[in-house]
Amino acid sequence: MNKSRLEAFSDGVFAIVITLLILDVHIPKVPYEELPHALRELIPNILAYALSFIIVGLYWVSHHNIVSMVDKINRPSLWLNILQLLTVSFIPFPASLIGAYPMGRVPVIFYGCSLLAANLVGFCTWYYISTCKGLLKPEITPQQIRATNLTFLSVNVVYVIAILLSFVSVPASYVIFLCVILLLIVRKPWDAKRVRHKKQAA
Amino acid sequence: MNKSRLEAFSDGVFAIVITLLILDVHIPKVPYEELPHALRELIPNILAYALSFIIVGLYWVSHHNIVSMVDKINRPSLWLNILQLLTVSFIPFPASLIGAYPMGRVPVIFYGCSLLAANLVGFCTWYYISTCKGLLKPEITPQQIRATNLTFLSVNVVYVIAILLSFVSVPASYVIFLCVILLLIVRKPWDAKRVRHKKQAA
Amino acid sequence: MNKSRLEAFSDGVFAIVITLLILDVHIPKVPYEELPHALRELIPNILAYALSFIIVGLYWVSHHNIVSMVDKINRPSLWLNILQLLTVSFIPFPASLIGAYPMGRVPVIFYGCSLLAANLVGFCTWYYISTCKGLLKPEITPQQIRATNLTFLSVNVVYVIAILLSFVSVPASYVIFLCVILLLIVRKPWDAKRVRHKKQAA
Amino acid sequence: MNKSRLEAFSDGVFAIVITLLILDVHIPKVPYEELPHALRELIPNILAYALSFIIVGLYWVSHHNIVSMVDKINRPSLWLNILQLLTVSFIPFPASLIGAYPMGRVPVIFYGCSLLAANLVGFCTWYYISTCKGLLKPEITPQQIRATNLTFLSVNVVYVIAILLSFVSVPASYVIFLCVILLLIVRKPWDAKRVRHKKQAA
Repeated sequence: MNKSRLEAFSDGVFAIVITLLILDVHIPKVPYEELPHALRELIPNILAYALSFIIVGLYWVSHHNIVSMVDKINRPSLWLNILQLLTVSFIPFPASLIGAYPMGRVPVIFYGCSLLAANLVGFCTWYYISTCKGLLKPEITPQQIRATNLTFLSVNVVYVIAILLSFVSVPASYVIFLCVILLLIVRKPWDAKRVRHKKQAA
Repeated sequence: MNKSRLEAFSDGVFAIVITLLILDVHIPKVPYEELPHALRELIPNILAYALSFIIVGLYWVSHHNIVSMVDKINRPSLWLNILQLLTVSFIPFPASLIGAYPMGRVPVIFYGCSLLAANLVGFCTWYYISTCKGLLKPEITPQQIRATNLTFLSVNVVYVIAILLSFVSVPASYVIFLCVILLLIVRKPWDAKRVRHKKQAA
Repeated sequence: MNKSRLEAFSDGVFAIVITLLILDVHIPKVPYEELPHALRELIPNILAYALSFIIVGLYWVSHHNIVSMVDKINRPSLWLNILQLLTVSFIPFPASLIGAYPMGRVPVIFYGCSLLAANLVGFCTWYYISTCKGLLKPEITPQQIRATNLTFLSVNVVYVIAILLSFVSVPASYVIFLCVILLLIVRKPWDAKRVRHKKQAA
Repeated sequence: MNKSRLEAFSDGVFAIVITLLILDVHIPKVPYEELPHALRELIPNILAYALSFIIVGLYWVSHHNIVSMVDKINRPSLWLNILQLLTVSFIPFPASLIGAYPMGRVPVIFYGCSLLAANLVGFCTWYYISTCKGLLKPEITPQQIRATNLTFLSVNVVYVIAILLSFVSVPASYVIFLCVILLLIVRKPWDAKRVRHKKQAA
């Protein structure tokens, strides 16, 4: 199994997952006069669509960050990757749940657990690759490995917090999910700069 | 994130969005004698399918025109690109709305706003790329940048006109959408020639 | 627009169209005892799935035969290609129609017209490319052009016959569709040999 | 038809099939209080999703193992490949059947037969390629050919056993499906080592 083919297949799965999310937003069959009201009732579905789109986008970016550090792929890492695609492909289901019951505790816990599962499998894949001899590119520094570990673990911790927080307040959980997104989008350029700086120093 | 992978992922999303549009055209469960009548009632859905197919096709062509002028991708442009895919992936929903209520004002406004949003995010992405130092290919001339700006802005203006016009006449809005399509399809070869001419002169 | 990107996008659309066909075969919600009967009632849907899968497969192979003879792509050929994808993406809808009303004349006519439309647009694309100067690869011989014209035209003629025949007998139309498939699958190796032979002679 | 394009198309189909599986897991429309109960009732669907995801993943890995040994593609092998994609694309339907009636004999037999069909067509493709002169890469040894034959045939035999076993006990069939998966995932690294060892010896 060569790396570029795994990438192409994974890209395909990510692209389909991210596009299938819109299938959960469908028109209500109502007489035209009730349409504006029916559309307003779809707002939670549309927000769940946007939230999940960005989150799957984050998993895709994270997946590529990992793959770009990988030199070779062996069978265990191939199957860990397929397992990760399994957890990512699952996300449209909990996404449709929070769209249907936006203020329910059960859907938010289910959603959080799915995101946590996808991230945990991602961490296992990365952990296996980074500790198995000869899979990482030789130029990857221990600092980069540590930084990636830290990102995975802190996201995991924050997802656990979001899940637990839902017992107190469901909106608070959503705020946490949004913060994870913003932090992951904003934090990374700083990483990239540090890495680039290291490379130039070397 | 290298450019070719972003392209592959974006191509995947565009290909899926454009193909999902047909899912909105489904057979009515009626006894066979009523089928011809039921099929005639699907004509608005089929027209909405064709219109949206061409429009998503235009976004795809526009996306590639932009990407072909780009040299490097940084994190903000990556996320602007994901945001654009989000707005494009959304289009099947308003497309199914105008299929279901073809002569309604609300669906046409909703449809127009979705197209406008996709085009606005496209413009923001392009504006960011064209003004951020070092992202564009060095051979891109200020004239090309200005021409692209102009295309984005004029399409935006026309979409706003189409949305406003729907308050007067819904069919008039559709005529505007069709005109945008025809202009964008026909206008471009002239651009391409001008660009090619510039390159030869250089 | 470079050729490889058009191919990748078209491949994506073909792959999605061909896979969406299965979505029309779905489980009936019946108590378990009635399941065997319900499955037997799905047989037309499954046959429509298989027939349409092979036909879309044929369009894909034909699309690649054409693209492999093309050297450059200009805007008209790009948009003719998008128009062809539009007609191919439409096929799941008539395919579900013949699955639902397998012995009805209207669905068969609709199905035949969709196949005819896809093939006609394919022919127009090919005709434009083969007559527009500088788009074909220089090594393509007039014989190859004539052979491709002939294939397109004869398939068109046979589709028209199948459509007309449905007024006499619907099963006869299906037999014609099957014959087109078999002929196109079997006839081609002979073509390939002839072409290869020509190349060696040159 | 060149090999890389066939791979890209097949990868696309596999990626879509594997992602469409989640569409069978959808939220029940129930009042919020009944949601936990409704989710518990979805567990068979979720397990069918996971099982089928891994099985389609296995077909994808197997497809690539075969393609990586292939040097050239002729028309019969192209159409055998399309036939295999047809059987793989069919899997979401029996997968949704076992999700809906997890303990029924008919769905399990149907599921087993679909897997068997996909594997049989895979074997035919491989058998054709490995016996037709000039299609395999010259470095492929008779041992590798024999090992691949053996894998296909033993999987076929085990699927037949699983189908027959369903007449005695449906859960036993599922155990067999799981064993096939585990064996195929675990057995392969040993193969890979042997092959690599052979190459070094040569």
